[in-house]
Parts: sequence; C-alpha cells; structure tokens
Amino acid sequence: MSVTAVPGFVAAGTACGVKASGADDLAMVATADGSPVIAAGVFTSNKMTAPPVLVTRKHLAATGGRAAAVVLNSGNANAATGAAGMADAEMMCVLTAEAIGCTPDEVLVCSTGLIGFPLPMDRIVSAIPTLAGDLSDDGGPAAARAIMTTDTVPRTTTVTGTTLDGGTFTIGGVAKGAAMLEPNMATMLAVLTTDALLDAPAATGALRAAVGVSFNCLTVDGAESTNDTVLLLASGAAGPVAADQFDGLLADACRDLAVQMADDAEGSTKTVFLTVTGAATDTEAAKGARDTANCQLVKCSWYGEDPYWGRIAAEMGAAGIAFDPATITIAYGGQVVYAAEQVQPVDEMALTAHMAGRRIDLEVDLGQGDGSAWIVTTDLSHAYIDENMRTS
Amino acid sequence: MSVTAVPGFVAAGTACGVKASGADDLAMVATADGSPVIAAGVFTSNKMTAPPVLVTRKHLAATGGRAAAVVLNSGNANAATGAAGMADAEMMCVLTAEAIGCTPDEVLVCSTGLIGFPLPMDRIVSAIPTLAGDLSDDGGPAAARAIMTTDTVPRTTTVTGTTLDGGTFTIGGVAKGAAMLEPNMATMLAVLTTDALLDAPAATGALRAAVGVSFNCLTVDGAESTNDTVLLLASGAAGPVAADQFDGLLADACRDLAVQMADDAEGSTKTVFLTVTGAATDTEAAKGARDTANCQLVKCSWYGEDPYWGRIAAEMGAAGIAFDPATITIAYGGQVVYAAEQVQPVDEMALTAHMAGRRIDLEVDLGQGDGSAWIVTTDLSHAYIDENMRTS
Repeated sequence: MSVTAVPGFVAAGTACGVKASGADDLAMVATADGSPVIAAGVFTSNKMTAPPVLVTRKHLAATGGRAAAVVLNSGNANAATGAAGMADAEMMCVLTAEAIGCTPDEVLVCSTGLIGFPLPMDRIVSAIPTLAGDLSDDGGPAAARAIMTTDTVPRTTTVTGTTLDGGTFTIGGVAKGAAMLEPNMATMLAVLTTDALLDAPAATGALRAAVGVSFNCLTVDGAESTNDTVLLLASGAAGPVAADQFDGLLADACRDLAVQMADDAEGSTKTVFLTVTGAATDTEAAKGARDTANCQLVKCSWYGEDPYWGRIAAEMGAAGIAFDPATITIAYGGQVVYAAEQVQPVDEMALTAHMAGRRIDLEVDLGQGDGSAWIVTTDLSHAYIDENMRTS
Repeated sequence: MSVTAVPGFVAAGTACGVKASGADDLAMVATADGSPVIAAGVFTSNKMTAPPVLVTRKHLAATGGRAAAVVLNSGNANAATGAAGMADAEMMCVLTAEAIGCTPDEVLVCSTGLIGFPLPMDRIVSAIPTLAGDLSDDGGPAAARAIMTTDTVPRTTTVTGTTLDGGTFTIGGVAKGAAMLEPNMATMLAVLTTDALLDAPAATGALRAAVGVSFNCLTVDGAESTNDTVLLLASGAAGPVAADQFDGLLADACRDLAVQMADDAEGSTKTVFLTVTGAATDTEAAKGARDTANCQLVKCSWYGEDPYWGRIAAEMGAAGIAFDPATITIAYGGQVVYAAEQVQPVDEMALTAHMAGRRIDLEVDLGQGDGSAWIVTTDLSHAYIDENMRTS
C-alpha cells in the first residue's frame, strides 16, 4: 500500500548512518521510469525555514510544478544550517537526479530531525545511488519507515476512486510526524502519489484544500516546525477524473494520515476530537478550538481522564472570541456536562468509560452564531516530557 | 510585613471549611477603622468572568474608587456559577460590611480555586464575623496564607519611599498564584496597600502601569484565568508623594510578587528570565517572548537543562514577527550559543552549571530593530502534570 499502491511509482528506504541508532533514515519516492510528472507542495510558514524546504520550493518554481523524485532523510532536519545547509540539500537532489536520470530541478528534498546540526553528507552521498537502485513498486512501506523520527509506527494510506472513463485511480501516501504538530503544519512530512490526471494548478489547489481540512486541523503541542512539507506527485496515467471526487478523496487520505499522527503522537495516551459550533464565525470557532487544544492545563485534564469542563469554558473565554458565559454548552462523549451556567446531571459510568478510552469526543457550542470548526489533538503526558527534555 | 506593614491597615486569615483539607481558606484586608480609602483594581480579560470579579468592578464603579475592605476565599473560584454565584459574592460583601461598619459597596471580593462549583456559603457566612473580629495590624501573613491554593509558600512584599515632606510611605502586598499564570494575568490575586496620598485616577494609573511591567510579564502555562484580580488600597495617611517614585516602587512591589510566583509555580524546577532585543517593535518582541515562553517543547528543554537553541530559533520563526535566520543571536547564561547561522563555541562547564541552576537567563537578539521585551516564565515538569491532571 502507501505511495507504491499507485501504478507507476516506486520507493525505497535504507539506513545510511544519519541516525546514531542505525535505524532507517534515508528514503526515496520516484516515478518508475524517472520521467517527471505534475507536482505540488504545501510548506511550513515558519520563517526559520529549513534549507530543504527552500530548495524544494525553488525546484517547483523552476519546473512550473513537475518532479520525478523526492529524496528524504530523518534524524537531522538540516535546519538553521545556513549556506552549507543549502548546498547539502542541493547536493541530495543532484545525486538523486544522476541516479534516476532526471534533472536536479526535478528532484524535491525533505529532512526531519534535530535542528541546527550539519548533515553527515559523506554517508548520504554514498547511500543515494544504492538507494536509487533499490527503488521498487513495493517499496512504499520501507520509505515510510525510513522517514520516522519519534514515530513508533510507519504511517501509510491508500484510497481509490473511479475515473471519468470508468477505470480506477489511486491515491497513496506516506507520512511522519509525532511532535511539533500544529495547524499550519509542523514537523510533519507527507508524500502523496496519484495516477489521476491533473494539471499543475489543479494539483496545487487540491493539495492546499486537503491540507486545510486535515494536517492543519491537527495540533499536538502548538509548536510549528521549520521543515513541514506535504508533496503530491500526479502521473496522469489513469486519465481524467472528476475534480470533486478527487479533492474529496485526497482530503480523506490526508485526514487518515493526520489522525494516525495524533494516535501516535509523542507520549500521548488520548486522541481528542474537539468540535466547536455556535461561534460567531468559522474563524472564531477555529481560534477557540485551537487555543483550547493547545492549553497545557486542558491537556493535563485529558491525561487525567477528567471531564473538567471549567477549564474548557475558561479557555474559550480567554480566546478573544465572541463569548457569553450564559450560552456555552459543553459535552464529553455526547453527554452535556455544562449548560445554562449549571453543571448538568450525567451518566457517570458512561462518562468515566468514555474518558478512559483512547478517543475522547469533546463538543463545545458557544451559542453565538453558525461558525464551526474541528480539530484533532492529544493529551500531555509524562512521556511527552521525557521525549523532549533533552536533544540527546 | 505584607499589607499590614502599612500603618492603618489590618488583616486576618482563617480556615472556614471551603477546602476539604482544613487549610486556611478565608482572608480579609481592611482599614483599621473601617472607613473607606482610595481603591483601584486591574482584572482578568477572560470573558468567562467570575462573579467576584463582576461584583468588585461594580462596587468600584459605584463608589468612584473607594473601599474599606477586601474579603477573599481560596479553594473555590466561584466561577461559572451564574446568578447564584453573583448572589454569593454580594453576600460576602454584605456580611463583611456589617462586621467592619461600612457599606457593602465599600467591600471588594476575590475568590480562587476550582471553577464551576457553588461556594459552601453556610461556612463562609458563619466565619466572616469571627474573621473580622480577628483583624489585626500583624495579620498580613495570615491573610497571605489563607489565599494560597497550590502555592507552597505565602507571597508577601513590602517597599518604602520618602514622602514630599520628608516622611516615610510604605507599600505592602500579599498575593497568590501558582498556575494559570500568563501575561494579562491568570489565577493570580494580589492585594496591595499603601499610606501614600493618591487620588483615584492616580491610583488606577499607577496600578495599571505596575501590572503591565510585572504580572503581565509573567507566564507559567499561557492559560488565563476567570478570576485574576490586583487591588490597591491607598489611605493617604502618609501624605503626598512624588508620582514617579511611587509608580516605580509600586512596580517593584508587583515585580517582587510576580517573581515569587514563578519561583513557586506548580511543579516548576526553573525560573527563566527571557529577554528579547532587536525586534522590529516592542510589541513584536513581546509576541516572540511570550510564544517562546509558552512553548511546551521549549519548556521541556529547560526542564532537561538543555540549552537547545534550535527550538528557540524555531519558535521565534513561528511567532509571525519580523525575522531573518541570518541575524538571530541566542545566548544562555550570557554565553552566545548561536549566531550568524552557526553554533558557537562555549565554555561547556559554565553553560552546564548555568542550566543546572534554579534561574536560567536566556537572551535572544533578532537583529531587526530596537524593540525589546522581558518575560519571566518556568519549565514544564512531571509534577506540573501531576498537579493538574485531576480536579480531585
């Protein structure tokens, strides 16, 4: 499954020694014949933009949205590395281009891992030709493994649709991301492939829309990374498709990957689906949802399996959005716990059981208007601190 | 010391049973003769405003800025309690007024603790007259103890200055606050007294300015409470003072209390003084400082005593302020760890020793302009999670 579920795409993953642990750390996704196809990307808005992001943007601009391969490494973000980091990212593209037979501009590059350390280029340089030789039509899972950092399981997805002439098209994806996840994307990488026929503007439009309702509705810790990248390669081999259907399925694929990220976020014990309705506008709903999802105190109460609605109300009240204490309604697991400025009677056993599960559903109605938003997030645990308190 | 270091003010604290633990939970600060003096307040901007905050604001408006007493309870915030909560807050003022001989409008009220539970008014009603009888000119520390929630030590301060006619004036304070602390104030209460002669506008102006450079430069977890209140009572008994000197000393008193809050914040092991310089504007400096101070990942690295500048740079890059990776300089403990897009050589032993201390100094220069800001914050520890994962 994954990116190689789509006919015409190949992938591979290997260990080249970027990670001291010896785990897989170098991946490649490419077209089977090395010829370029339509390509689109969505990137971090962090101004401390990492060199691989700058190089990938430059290459997409130079080709007008075409690429034949993506080369990715984990274990080192090649971020805050200045001119040397730019040269390293370009070199990864040059070597990949030589190995698969395209131009360097037709190669995109992603890095993820620690910020601020030079890439061990000697190891990457010697590994790229071998990795290109390993590219195969069942290499997608290996690529997914090789981009993992603190992820504990690889993330892949595949969805299929029907083309305009009655055939089948496929969308496949691999992704990584376990912390520094936040709307507007943060330390998450995803590469999606498809054989649907799209032009470059359609590919870019569909990808932006899909990211908006998936990765950008995910927050783990509110931190936004220097390296976030989502790429789409579209070969067109399956022929023309209905735009609506394609856009919907691409969003489904991205949502699937985003929820997998939450389910395996660093140290998390809960995946929380937070829906805000009744806001004055969708924008205000999203602000309230995001602030609440990123609140340390709220995250602690989820870890404690405590349906403490007081913190939810306080956070919505602090979000700077239209708000009236008299009209807020808060429900956990479908049970209203607070409404009309009163604690509400609940089925305690059912509520306790809901809070004890991996998935928590939290619905907040602000009673102000028709604005709504959805976000998926996680709790804050001891293990999160343990994973992030030291770089080594 | 504390509020009763100022001649003409009395205070008391007791346990009335709001806290199940039996710890002190009811406090009073008043003028010795029950007559009203100039009063000013600064309050939370959380729209889930707690009834005691609403009542205190109403009373200050009704009297034009005069009060004879403040009654405070801990263990229950009387927040999100609707009309019943308003009646309870008013009742606390009525009973206090009867006990000390002033009008109910001349009493201010504060509550802190859990959100969303009715106050146990029977216990408070019977305790207020007794508490008023205990008011004494050395009761400040008892009042400071009785407003503690998860604070481990009471917080008091006293500063003195010289009046225009060569005498001495005093500013005293008590405060509480251990979590939900954030610029714009959050679950922190402070009552300050002085015998300086001020009119109501001068008192309000001085208090707002002092809060702006003290409590509003403090963030523990980015959460903003429903109950934050800072009050100033000014008797005028010491006579006229120089406004500049008074304003400076009031700011000193508030800063002293704010740093005490950081030093004893829930579960914290580090107090971090973060200075941002070289921002395009002071506002942008403050945005970068606040976002960085509230970043979970950054807080974890402080807990781990890891001077990981990559996270600092990434957070500044994500703050939405003018930023150029080429010009950012980051220093821990006075040692530059990153500049000119390069990790810098440091005295490792000295840096390790600095990171191991209770106080960490972090300086970030953005190289964009002359804007600067200062913030005091804390790390994120296992103990913080333990204190906040359950309400009971």
